[in-house]
Amino acid sequence: MNRAELFEQIQKKQSFLCVGLDADIKKIPEHLLNEEDPIFAFNKEIIDATQDLCVAYKPNTAFYESLGVQGWIALEKTITYIKENYPEQLVIADAKRGDIGNTSAMYARTFFEALDADAVTVAPYMGEDSVSPFLGYANKWVILLALTSNKGSADFQRIENKENAQPLFESVMRTAQTWANEDQLMFVVGATQGKAFEQIRAIAPEHFLLVPGVGAQGGSLQEVCKYGMTKQCGLLVNSSRGIIYKSNGEDFGAAARQAAKELQAEMAQELKKI
Amino acid sequence: MNRAELFEQIQKKQSFLCVGLDADIKKIPEHLLNEEDPIFAFNKEIIDATQDLCVAYKPNTAFYESLGVQGWIALEKTITYIKENYPEQLVIADAKRGDIGNTSAMYARTFFEALDADAVTVAPYMGEDSVSPFLGYANKWVILLALTSNKGSADFQRIENKENAQPLFESVMRTAQTWANEDQLMFVVGATQGKAFEQIRAIAPEHFLLVPGVGAQGGSLQEVCKYGMTKQCGLLVNSSRGIIYKSNGEDFGAAARQAAKELQAEMAQELKKI
Repeated sequence: MNRAELFEQIQKKQSFLCVGLDADIKKIPEHLLNEEDPIFAFNKEIIDATQDLCVAYKPNTAFYESLGVQGWIALEKTITYIKENYPEQLVIADAKRGDIGNTSAMYARTFFEALDADAVTVAPYMGEDSVSPFLGYANKWVILLALTSNKGSADFQRIENKENAQPLFESVMRTAQTWANEDQLMFVVGATQGKAFEQIRAIAPEHFLLVPGVGAQGGSLQEVCKYGMTKQCGLLVNSSRGIIYKSNGEDFGAAARQAAKELQAEMAQELKKI
Repeated sequence: MNRAELFEQIQKKQSFLCVGLDADIKKIPEHLLNEEDPIFAFNKEIIDATQDLCVAYKPNTAFYESLGVQGWIALEKTITYIKENYPEQLVIADAKRGDIGNTSAMYARTFFEALDADAVTVAPYMGEDSVSPFLGYANKWVILLALTSNKGSADFQRIENKENAQPLFESVMRTAQTWANEDQLMFVVGATQGKAFEQIRAIAPEHFLLVPGVGAQGGSLQEVCKYGMTKQCGLLVNSSRGIIYKSNGEDFGAAARQAAKELQAEMAQELKKI
């Protein structure tokens, strides 16, 4: 999916919501544990209940890997289910990978070929040759960690350099723009970073930003939009726990839909401003 | 395995070799493709052929993930095989993971509980709460990326800060030492970094360093030892391609053994100096 198609979906659905499929076997409703594949059953119901309210799904690989082989089967089935039933959705593998060139090429093969995700999150620490193998695919996206939503983001990402006092996350964003443009590259910026979005937009005026941290982590959608929204929206705002665990009873699908609908309604208001 | 036990193994085997199990289905000997699980068959023969010459095995998860479910099965079988047959070996899951706290906790569960690896490589970009969940396990190791072996390591890891001109990799190493000590924490430092080992030892005099980049990537074992070796060795030098793909015929096990033996002999010479 290219940038124009993504914006088209956002306009059509009046939503820039990404639903985080962080399905944890210890948190999903108990009645699902009798299913043959409880994680897939959970995801399928969440997806069916929210697909018209969001433009992207983001399974975080950690939750699947923790179940070993069964988890990978559930991940594969989940992505295939989305691709077959809702091909207009952007599927983001939240993997935060990155390794030396020949090894990153294997990760790219995994996520873009074997799993057929549309986008993958990548960690920048190892530099260009750890990221570039992911950039060799048409209509696939690299979403590079820039300024993350967690407390630890302050440990290294905000260290200012000697030369021009640029914080590390800015160096990452500027350097990465010499590797690819906004048609292939997005950045992760946490909703908890508030006014930093103004600074981010000075560095990357057009790039889509993947924004986690609304909901359970405490970020404000309004603030993110105020400082981060572009003429083509430029935002994918993720909510995971705030949607998928809204209820742990048999009504979890309806509860997730309700939570997604509330966010989508707020997003529609924000989209009117552009 | 704790630090004293690791040094004991090094002395006993006169080796600080780590064999990188980067088994690529496109590179393993053709005759193995008829096996039920070619990757496991390949690893098993490499392990049996080298186990008395090395102290650690390091499967890089990228190679297994690229095969999807079959790859995870091969990874699980490989680690179980080492644990059951050569329990004196340190098993390093080279995964380079790192995410927000609750997600890193899932990765820790994967690698330390489900797979029972002894160590996992972790990327530092997201800071303390992305690393600390891996530190909650007794006798398990976090191996944090510091100064990697690839060309891209210069992109961000060597950026000097405004305050005291400390490069990023040094900030990572110093900050991480406030989270854990040398009994739980190692660092990745590429063999290609040569004289930087002197600087590294000023920052972390006692920590074990996991050193990739000897062999295919061009690093020198002698230089690494000259600047990086401590009284308790303090080094795990990894070779992957230089050992496991020495031959792609039916003699690949014997060829791998020969390559490992040559490295081990050089290591024995270096160990005499401490």
